[in-house]
Amino acid sequence: MTESPARTPQTERTRLMRQRLLEATVDSLVELGWAGTSTTIVSQRAGVSRGAQLHHFPSKQDLVVAAVEYIAERRREELFVDLDLLPEQGRTRAVLDLLAGQFTSPVFLAALELWVAARTDPDLQAKVAPFERRVGRETHARAVELLQVDESRGRNRQLVQATLDLLRGLGLAATLTDDSARRASILDAWAETLDRELER
Amino acid sequence: MTESPARTPQTERTRLMRQRLLEATVDSLVELGWAGTSTTIVSQRAGVSRGAQLHHFPSKQDLVVAAVEYIAERRREELFVDLDLLPEQGRTRAVLDLLAGQFTSPVFLAALELWVAARTDPDLQAKVAPFERRVGRETHARAVELLQVDESRGRNRQLVQATLDLLRGLGLAATLTDDSARRASILDAWAETLDRELER
Repeated sequence: MTESPARTPQTERTRLMRQRLLEATVDSLVELGWAGTSTTIVSQRAGVSRGAQLHHFPSKQDLVVAAVEYIAERRREELFVDLDLLPEQGRTRAVLDLLAGQFTSPVFLAALELWVAARTDPDLQAKVAPFERRVGRETHARAVELLQVDESRGRNRQLVQATLDLLRGLGLAATLTDDSARRASILDAWAETLDRELER
Repeated sequence: MTESPARTPQTERTRLMRQRLLEATVDSLVELGWAGTSTTIVSQRAGVSRGAQLHHFPSKQDLVVAAVEYIAERRREELFVDLDLLPEQGRTRAVLDLLAGQFTSPVFLAALELWVAARTDPDLQAKVAPFERRVGRETHARAVELLQVDESRGRNRQLVQATLDLLRGLGLAATLTDDSARRASILDAWAETLDRELER
């Protein structure tokens, strides 16, 4: 990690404390769900005093919205692998695995808790929805790059969107039962379909 | 509705009361979410006394598990339209619309609340998961009938599974934002793809 030389020990300590709080929020969402997550539990898990926690994130909503942003940033980073590392043979299938990771990771589970909580909480929805749209656009753009297609051609754009929606659906199914064998078989068939149907 | 002649007015009243409770549970899950749903709220909404409600469903868990079964039954019925009513032209697209209804209806939203609650609640998961697997198998079998394919041929089985997972992913996306135009465009492209890729 390269640190800015202008960063003082104090701001660095603050940054690390905020990061611990956000990571603890994500972990709590994954393990305990939305209803089980509270600012008290998060401050305990992060080893941060209640006072310091409340100073940075006065409410559960503040904490969770900040954690969503942090979640999305982590989700994005996972996708920026070196394109040269993808195999020539079975490249589409490898891209599907990479993208699928976005919809089965702990980060997806935390985001799922947020989406579902936001569905019946208008304040939370107002904060989460625009953000999710932006993340959706960014993930779509990266999927286009990974699949190396020109999305102005044919039905490429819709097929990339369908791929991401398929992966979201598989991710949701995986939260209830371990269906990794079923998922692998579906992704094999999907990769073959994409290779035939995408206009390259 | 054909009633059994052996059914007494008393059992009929009980059946209707149970039905009101289960429908109120689903409505409450849709409007208030898992955390906002309680036995008190459900008995108020159903217009059923607390005593009668507790007699039939002693806990939130009992009530919700019974409601899941009721949900699944309602989900199933929606799919049993007369096959002759589907158009000859654009049949695959019409089937996709019919199946998509399973993943955007209030019934899907109630089920989504259950799935997500069950993810971090082992007792609830033990009750919901086998049930969801059964519903998944039934929906798959019906999709095969609606699409009129032999699933032992080629990649038909995987393509039908992928279709249902795609629809689940679209359903989840629709809970946060109204993306019906996007969905229609994806389903247009997917219907064309299925018509080319399914072996009939």
